[in-house]
Amino acid sequence: MSRFLDSISTIISIFHQHTKEDGDHSKLSRRQMKEFIQREFADVIKPHDPQTIDKILQFLEWDGDGEIDFNEFLLLVGIHEKEKNEQHE
Amino acid sequence: MSRFLDSISTIISIFHQHTKEDGDHSKLSRRQMKEFIQREFADVIKPHDPQTIDKILQFLEWDGDGEIDFNEFLLLVGIHEKEKNEQHE
Repeated sequence: MSRFLDSISTIISIFHQHTKEDGDHSKLSRRQMKEFIQREFADVIKPHDPQTIDKILQFLEWDGDGEIDFNEFLLLVGIHEKEKNEQHE
Repeated sequence: MSRFLDSISTIISIFHQHTKEDGDHSKLSRRQMKEFIQREFADVIKPHDPQTIDKILQFLEWDGDGEIDFNEFLLLVGIHEKEKNEQHE
């Protein structure tokens, strides 16, 4: 498998590992997403920075249904890309 | 780095490897994207299936400017997730 497909598969499987924890298997609740960001982004977000995490959650939940589906989840990847780009400018 | 951040970084760097080839470094031309899909999705798309590739390109280019930026590029990841999900249903 190409490195690209491999990375996509990892992202998809990590998303589904977390959605499996309860209820609807295609979406993450706000609480699940918060825990997810705190764990996976530990290297890039300050540990006690609830404001940043809340801002990210607000941004991700663009359809306002209180849950994060896979497309909304992908916005996280986009945020990270934008940050990386800005660091290089 | 977490496995999740690692995969995101791989996707971002692969995107930028390809955008660096010419002109605007933040976007892929239709030609670049076509070559990219043919190479990276070789395992999942039939080798001589120009129709599928054209459909994917049409879908990605949702703002109609003839180029693919990183957010449009991410739709590829979404397509792949949808396919995987449908295989499991």
